[in-house]
Amino acid sequence: MSDLAYTIGVDLGGTNLRAAAIDRAGNILDKTSGATNFEEGRDAVLNDIAGAVNQLRARFGSSGFYGIGIGVPGFIDIERGVIVGTHNLLGFDGFPMRDDLSQRLSTPVILENDANAAALGEKWMGAGRDVNDLVLLTLGTGIGGGIISGGRVLHGHVGMAGELGHITAIPGGNPCGCGNSGCLEKHASATAVEAMAKLVALGDHLTAKDVFDLAEQGNPLALMVFHHMGTALGLALATLINIFNFPLYLLSGGVLPAWKFFAPVMLAEIEKRSFTYRHTKTRVEPATLGNQAGLYGAAYLPFLMHKLSAGA
Amino acid sequence: MSDLAYTIGVDLGGTNLRAAAIDRAGNILDKTSGATNFEEGRDAVLNDIAGAVNQLRARFGSSGFYGIGIGVPGFIDIERGVIVGTHNLLGFDGFPMRDDLSQRLSTPVILENDANAAALGEKWMGAGRDVNDLVLLTLGTGIGGGIISGGRVLHGHVGMAGELGHITAIPGGNPCGCGNSGCLEKHASATAVEAMAKLVALGDHLTAKDVFDLAEQGNPLALMVFHHMGTALGLALATLINIFNFPLYLLSGGVLPAWKFFAPVMLAEIEKRSFTYRHTKTRVEPATLGNQAGLYGAAYLPFLMHKLSAGA
Repeated sequence: MSDLAYTIGVDLGGTNLRAAAIDRAGNILDKTSGATNFEEGRDAVLNDIAGAVNQLRARFGSSGFYGIGIGVPGFIDIERGVIVGTHNLLGFDGFPMRDDLSQRLSTPVILENDANAAALGEKWMGAGRDVNDLVLLTLGTGIGGGIISGGRVLHGHVGMAGELGHITAIPGGNPCGCGNSGCLEKHASATAVEAMAKLVALGDHLTAKDVFDLAEQGNPLALMVFHHMGTALGLALATLINIFNFPLYLLSGGVLPAWKFFAPVMLAEIEKRSFTYRHTKTRVEPATLGNQAGLYGAAYLPFLMHKLSAGA
Repeated sequence: MSDLAYTIGVDLGGTNLRAAAIDRAGNILDKTSGATNFEEGRDAVLNDIAGAVNQLRARFGSSGFYGIGIGVPGFIDIERGVIVGTHNLLGFDGFPMRDDLSQRLSTPVILENDANAAALGEKWMGAGRDVNDLVLLTLGTGIGGGIISGGRVLHGHVGMAGELGHITAIPGGNPCGCGNSGCLEKHASATAVEAMAKLVALGDHLTAKDVFDLAEQGNPLALMVFHHMGTALGLALATLINIFNFPLYLLSGGVLPAWKFFAPVMLAEIEKRSFTYRHTKTRVEPATLGNQAGLYGAAYLPFLMHKLSAGA
């Protein structure tokens, strides 16, 4: 084994493409980032990814190189390495991305859903480094989820496990694009905060940040919005805690600065609704890696695969 | 290795104590059952268990004997082999049952929660024999749950995972002994069916079987009770499907004969509330081993442990 063992993690976001060479101890050796040019077509995006990887690999060599992990905003058919049901990524739906990139880069590539990658990143180098089991909820435009069980991503049957934004939090609640009503992400995402601000007549075109600023000023309607968000999150988290009895549940994403406004209600709701929470040591906390979590998780994938195939 | 490889499974129920010698292929070689005499004290129960085990072991010998698995109606602190928070089993709360029985029987003993054991039994020899991942809901006086992930019981932090009867199904619903309101078991267990029958003025002292008989006769109030039960089950199952994306979800227990009355509503609710259900192959079915599931699961535990420690 070379002295320098490293992987390259890629985080393919809707607006940014980031890549980093990370060593076994979790040190970022170098990173690169740029805009994601989805409007230029699939091939341009794949070339950008290959370019970023090659640039990093040229610098750190191939002797200690363990492989490439890529976090992607969409469902992934894990067996086939294909992105499925992705409306955001034009031209990628059904595309065999893993094999295409493996060929372009002449090296094995591991794909992972972005929220799963973020959960794995938090387990490796973030708030979950001392546990093997955790659940991460990413509160952004929507709500994503990642479940780490026994140190590995829980994938389910075809890789669609962890759709935590679509847990029913409020049975008669807001209609969701998924066909359900009352999905968690319709009551606790940034988009939900904006919709609720409109609903309570706080303002028609406020961003989640605007609502946060109003809450900072003590505006009762803004505080009510975060109160509702906390109630929905608490109900969903209590259900997750009753199901998993994991030691750690993490929240991340753009709405996290509002923690002080929604967390007290959320924690009270969990306390009320989960016997398991009251009787076992269970932490519900902000994640710590911010938007780097997915990059760490993607980079960890080749190390994890190597570790597992070595039987460790 | 002996030609006859077998284990002994014990199912310690609130009213019955059953034990069976089962071979590696899942054939029941012999079984024994009797009343569980909790009123005679802990030592009497432990002696009954030891007696049943010794009787079976005397018959099949020790050369091919793989060990003992015991399904217990309570939480189990898996690391310590101790039953915790069990109000039904007088004298067992906090008792180091695993080590006590290991000593009495001079052989390793594995404890497992009864619903977890039933889920494992269904995976080994029942409706789940062709999958590695499943969720089982046991609909009885209460509702228990067992989660099998990667062929093993998902235990969580201290062994309390799978408390599926306490998923919030109806947020403003019936109060539960656990401190929550609207727990699944308050809306979909045999006890809930009886309570709902009273609530809709069907009758004050009807059993779940009585309500079933009335539904058979087309009684609209009895049908309404099972409709409500199906709605609550469907909501909880949709959440489980969105979380796990497992291929199989099983229902068992005393209320199962009412399947035809609650299942259509339940399946429609799942269809509506789960994108994952609509887009991946997901089976929601009755379990097939009935009240033998726990016995099979308990007997499978020593085989599974041996298999895992052999690295298979």
